[in-house]
Amino acid sequence: MERADKGLAFILKYENVAWYEDGKVKILDRRIYPQKVEYVCCENHREVAQAIADMVTQSGGPYLAAPMGMALAAYEVRDKKEEEQIDYLKKAAYKLSHARPTTVKRMEIVVNKALNAAKKAIKAGQKADKAIFEHALEEINNKYKKIDRIAGNLVDFFPDKGTIITQCFAESIVGLMLREAKNRGKDIKVICPETRPYFQGARLTASVACEQGFDVRVITDNMPAYVMEKENVDLFTSAADVITMDGHVVNKIGTFQIAMAAHYNDIPYFVTGAPDRDHPDIDSIEIEERDGDFVLQAMGERTAVEGVKRYYPAFDITPPKFVSGVVTGKGIYSPYDLKKYYK
Amino acid sequence: MERADKGLAFILKYENVAWYEDGKVKILDRRIYPQKVEYVCCENHREVAQAIADMVTQSGGPYLAAPMGMALAAYEVRDKKEEEQIDYLKKAAYKLSHARPTTVKRMEIVVNKALNAAKKAIKAGQKADKAIFEHALEEINNKYKKIDRIAGNLVDFFPDKGTIITQCFAESIVGLMLREAKNRGKDIKVICPETRPYFQGARLTASVACEQGFDVRVITDNMPAYVMEKENVDLFTSAADVITMDGHVVNKIGTFQIAMAAHYNDIPYFVTGAPDRDHPDIDSIEIEERDGDFVLQAMGERTAVEGVKRYYPAFDITPPKFVSGVVTGKGIYSPYDLKKYYK
Repeated sequence: MERADKGLAFILKYENVAWYEDGKVKILDRRIYPQKVEYVCCENHREVAQAIADMVTQSGGPYLAAPMGMALAAYEVRDKKEEEQIDYLKKAAYKLSHARPTTVKRMEIVVNKALNAAKKAIKAGQKADKAIFEHALEEINNKYKKIDRIAGNLVDFFPDKGTIITQCFAESIVGLMLREAKNRGKDIKVICPETRPYFQGARLTASVACEQGFDVRVITDNMPAYVMEKENVDLFTSAADVITMDGHVVNKIGTFQIAMAAHYNDIPYFVTGAPDRDHPDIDSIEIEERDGDFVLQAMGERTAVEGVKRYYPAFDITPPKFVSGVVTGKGIYSPYDLKKYYK
Repeated sequence: MERADKGLAFILKYENVAWYEDGKVKILDRRIYPQKVEYVCCENHREVAQAIADMVTQSGGPYLAAPMGMALAAYEVRDKKEEEQIDYLKKAAYKLSHARPTTVKRMEIVVNKALNAAKKAIKAGQKADKAIFEHALEEINNKYKKIDRIAGNLVDFFPDKGTIITQCFAESIVGLMLREAKNRGKDIKVICPETRPYFQGARLTASVACEQGFDVRVITDNMPAYVMEKENVDLFTSAADVITMDGHVVNKIGTFQIAMAAHYNDIPYFVTGAPDRDHPDIDSIEIEERDGDFVLQAMGERTAVEGVKRYYPAFDITPPKFVSGVVTGKGIYSPYDLKKYYK
């Protein structure tokens, strides 16, 4: 792999964290990072799917973990007949793309590309695992280039000196937007809500910003509305798991509240990412409910007494009225005018 | 003390947790409850003030801890001259009432009453510590009677069958409103945001509701807006640290966001408590900033890397536009019409 430039090292550290090598896929366990740097080692593609379901890797991570899982699936059947290999890979593609219900559509695109790379290699008598792996690396390099364009467009909205508030951890765009802000000499302070129950904001976003030398403050998830008022926040930004064609943003639980508070405080909210043609509106969105036990613990410690129930919707939906602009690699779009993106 | 009726046992368990006895004040450590039931034992009134500042007891707790601290101060100077005793108690009253900046005014009322009880006793040649202690018990019994009236007025707004969402832990009103709802045969489900960084919602409110036999679910603080939409929440209620005469609610950080989300979802927000004539408006409100280290940890575990900063405003301010009614023992008032309360 062309290991990108040095400035990207901080991103790769967090994101190039699912790696196919020697008949295994190693995935950085983001559930415990940065307290501990440990990897989940998957011996077959089903374990990769399970790791994705178990939130071992998050945000952009699964889109790299899935093709790496496909490479591993190809390795599992490397000695079988051509037909059997393809049949097995199709099943693996289904398994991996359906690991988490909210992201099935986007994951299908990713695994199907890997499947096509495998088919080509198999027909040419080449190693399918190697072909998928190289394909995955090419894809991620292309992804970085694309996200760098999005970052550039987003940073246009940053003040020369000011404060932004983020939500959760959208690794590449967080790293690249901060690098771009620094390159342009903008003096930006960062406020990160901690993002319960996994603390991605505290553990990951704040760490990335801190390692890049930014003044970064963590707040709890009940503070954004107040902090926006008191700290002269200039801009709120988040990535999205899905942006529907009618301008709804499906993202980490809490985004809706922060966007609402930003709207109330006249602070613009810019979401990064492309609208998704598979989701014309929110009718096609299924909000994943995760294991609620996480809600009743923090850093592994139980918070409430036995008998108390819990509820853990993983995402929420921000309506277009709270979205100031959808920032894409091609430019900025109104959430009410996303069809233009595909014209 | 007339130990209230059995139905109040659950409240007393949480609130009558600062107790003057044998020249000491024992305070239940709510920072670790319910995982551990431990008491902070104060040998003098300064330690009581420190315990209040350190959040050993919270919500209504300090208003009992402070007079108990006054009783202890009286015990400390029991062998001194009359004048010296009163002088010492005045200083203790200042120390105890100023333990936390947000509640100085209300605390001053409480400690001054204790001081008056002491003066009377000293002049009559009686034991000042005993007089203050008995005065404190009388006050708390009166308080329960008053809160029970507030609870009755609040429960009038509860549906016969439905769901309410709370914020933080306002012990007496939480316990009494639930008991009243149960007495009236109302079928109420309770949703408790966990209230970071201390988890009062998860640790205390949810526990009280659960122990009273309610269906109670804990959510993280980034979920209320979404959960209100999805779970047909009927009503949001919280207590307040201060209600200003012009209808602003100063309460635990996060109240503002939940009230905003309730407003957006057409869910009424009823705040319990009396308007405070010492605070005509928010100009006189000082928002306490607490030790931010709590924001970078959860249940004692560090969340972010070294170098990351933190910010911990303990309260926020909800404007009257998001308040549907101020529920007092005398009835319901519009947040825009609170002068009527004192007429």
